[in-house]
Amino acid sequence: MDLVIRDIETLLTMDSDDGLGRLDGAAVGFRDGRVAWVGPSDKAPDAADNLSGKGLIGLPGLVDCHTHAAWAGSRAPEFEARLAGAEYSAILEAGGGILSTVRATRAASEAELVDATRTRLLAMRSRGVTTVEVKSGYGLSVADETKQLKAAAQAGEQAGVHVVTTWLGAHTVPAEHRAHREAYLKQLIEEQLPAVASLASFADAYVDRGAFTIAECEQLFGAAKASGLGLRIHAEQVTYTGAAALAARLGASSADHLEHIDAEGMAAMAAAGTVGVMLPGAMLYLRDPAPPIEALREAGVRLAVATDYNPGTSPVVDLWTAATLASVMLRMTVTEVLRGITVEAARALDLSDRGRVAVGMAGDLVLVRPPVGEPAEPSVLVQHMACHRAEHVVIGGELVGT
Amino acid sequence: MDLVIRDIETLLTMDSDDGLGRLDGAAVGFRDGRVAWVGPSDKAPDAADNLSGKGLIGLPGLVDCHTHAAWAGSRAPEFEARLAGAEYSAILEAGGGILSTVRATRAASEAELVDATRTRLLAMRSRGVTTVEVKSGYGLSVADETKQLKAAAQAGEQAGVHVVTTWLGAHTVPAEHRAHREAYLKQLIEEQLPAVASLASFADAYVDRGAFTIAECEQLFGAAKASGLGLRIHAEQVTYTGAAALAARLGASSADHLEHIDAEGMAAMAAAGTVGVMLPGAMLYLRDPAPPIEALREAGVRLAVATDYNPGTSPVVDLWTAATLASVMLRMTVTEVLRGITVEAARALDLSDRGRVAVGMAGDLVLVRPPVGEPAEPSVLVQHMACHRAEHVVIGGELVGT
Repeated sequence: MDLVIRDIETLLTMDSDDGLGRLDGAAVGFRDGRVAWVGPSDKAPDAADNLSGKGLIGLPGLVDCHTHAAWAGSRAPEFEARLAGAEYSAILEAGGGILSTVRATRAASEAELVDATRTRLLAMRSRGVTTVEVKSGYGLSVADETKQLKAAAQAGEQAGVHVVTTWLGAHTVPAEHRAHREAYLKQLIEEQLPAVASLASFADAYVDRGAFTIAECEQLFGAAKASGLGLRIHAEQVTYTGAAALAARLGASSADHLEHIDAEGMAAMAAAGTVGVMLPGAMLYLRDPAPPIEALREAGVRLAVATDYNPGTSPVVDLWTAATLASVMLRMTVTEVLRGITVEAARALDLSDRGRVAVGMAGDLVLVRPPVGEPAEPSVLVQHMACHRAEHVVIGGELVGT
Repeated sequence: MDLVIRDIETLLTMDSDDGLGRLDGAAVGFRDGRVAWVGPSDKAPDAADNLSGKGLIGLPGLVDCHTHAAWAGSRAPEFEARLAGAEYSAILEAGGGILSTVRATRAASEAELVDATRTRLLAMRSRGVTTVEVKSGYGLSVADETKQLKAAAQAGEQAGVHVVTTWLGAHTVPAEHRAHREAYLKQLIEEQLPAVASLASFADAYVDRGAFTIAECEQLFGAAKASGLGLRIHAEQVTYTGAAALAARLGASSADHLEHIDAEGMAAMAAAGTVGVMLPGAMLYLRDPAPPIEALREAGVRLAVATDYNPGTSPVVDLWTAATLASVMLRMTVTEVLRGITVEAARALDLSDRGRVAVGMAGDLVLVRPPVGEPAEPSVLVQHMACHRAEHVVIGGELVGT
């Protein structure tokens, strides 16, 4: 082995269909960048490098499966306006919200975007996040969407974090196209899509009041799928539109938000294996109602949890905080939440090689020290808010800084 | 000067009756442990030590004016029970909640309590908190209440953080006195109070359903006041009892929680100068309704914000997270929130020598770097959640580690 971490107090492998795959006193070995051995510490093989996991909780490297981390500009003025009572939809209609971030992101150079995004990815990594989905959607033109996607990928390389890129040209209709949205849809399909198809793994769309319609999304997703992109969607956040059912029908990997999803949408998602991504940060900041978590659970929809990290509606970089919010606001169980930031988040990104600690998986592992006085139990990771930093992070079989 | 911090991008002195006391490009000088100079950086005096505050936001050392940080044991099992639907009042009545922490804290040695509390105080200090109120209330006997108060003070000395101790013998009736609560009240007044009077600055009581009554509190507070202790109170959290009005009438420094306060209570607090301490962490975890913040504001009640850091109902060590929650959940303004964790929090502790940056004040200052890409504006400190660490902390005029 290149590296073995021994005596991990509590290892949550997630190598189970619905549990935590807990092993006490386990070791994990890495070779050639992947997990090559998992088992009782006293039977672990020799290794060139060795590290003790005593007193620590081990998990697969965390996966933040929904972020907008490659932005420029500030939404602090909007935050103060919202505290004074302005609704997000009103801010949006007045050219604020997403549109102000679009202006700033268009004005930023690719190098500036790389710098800012790298700093954000390193902040995530220090908490144990090793795979981050980053969406475009603040460019909304061929040049600016490709710039954003390239910047996200480059920032990931510089930060040593796996970045999965998603093209979100259909985030909103840009200001210059407000009067002729069909022209923007045409640009999306005929100009942006060919330019981004080699830069992104997924296409995403924001289907809601004030954003895109079901019909527009279906047209766009048909073209994206034909270009080889996977699909994911912002669905049922502000109003019910039927976007979740559409996503399931088109074979999307995830449908995210879901505050207003109906029974038909849930059944379709469960049948199609479309993961529901819970974004409690946006719920908190927008004071949205909670998604119908019990109904989603009963329908058999797999659930992930992500930060939705963005400068306006979820300025929450810390995936552990999103995890705690998912439990206290949505009453997701500890097991659901911890699976939701690992194996189910990987599933939401169509990644079967991570999110679990098992032989052959990506060599990504995080070790966290429980808060002082707490036992190395999974629940303490969710119960205590806004305090977990990674004690050690392994990415691709190598220890990296935290 | 012993130390001058120069070129502070944005200094929020809080040296104002209701604003942030903002100075751009300011310097702060320290001598003999206190603030000795504040003004434009280009006019700042010479100093033995110098530090640049370029790009940073400066504030008075933060004050966390309501914590229960000196505990032993774990409440993780209770957290899982609550996720499964159990109400806190039911857990309390079944001997869980506070009572389980009482058992663990009684079983812990003073040295063990010092160690755990010191670690927690250092976590707070790394975020820029320089003064922390720590309550007892998990001992509930003469020996264990004094042990807890001594441990809190000693942990403060070891961590280099100012600790203000509050005796909370009236946190709950301990299990052995459930059948004869009047005997516990007698013990509080005749045995605990004389033993803790020299160890605590304040007496506190939890007046609510399942805890202490108004009449019991009035008797206790009369004795505490006569023993030279200041007063503070847990009031109107689960049910309305009139505790806030009582606190104001008795001259309490603060009344905390206030979810169910009435107009009479607000008027009494405003007239008496009793600070209302908002504890959004407990609100979030207990899914309590928000205090009537607009009415409190209109009544002229001064508002502070604290973590309520405790192992059960608010496992939130990060005062910045409490600040963000206060804005997004209570719609407190940025100015209210930032004053609430500095000058108003100091007022809640009857401390007139801190919470502001002005000549003669305690030499406690924190410098925070805005999240990448954000300007050095006060709002970004509140808008971005769970991410602020102190870049520099000055306590008693000296730079300490973060």
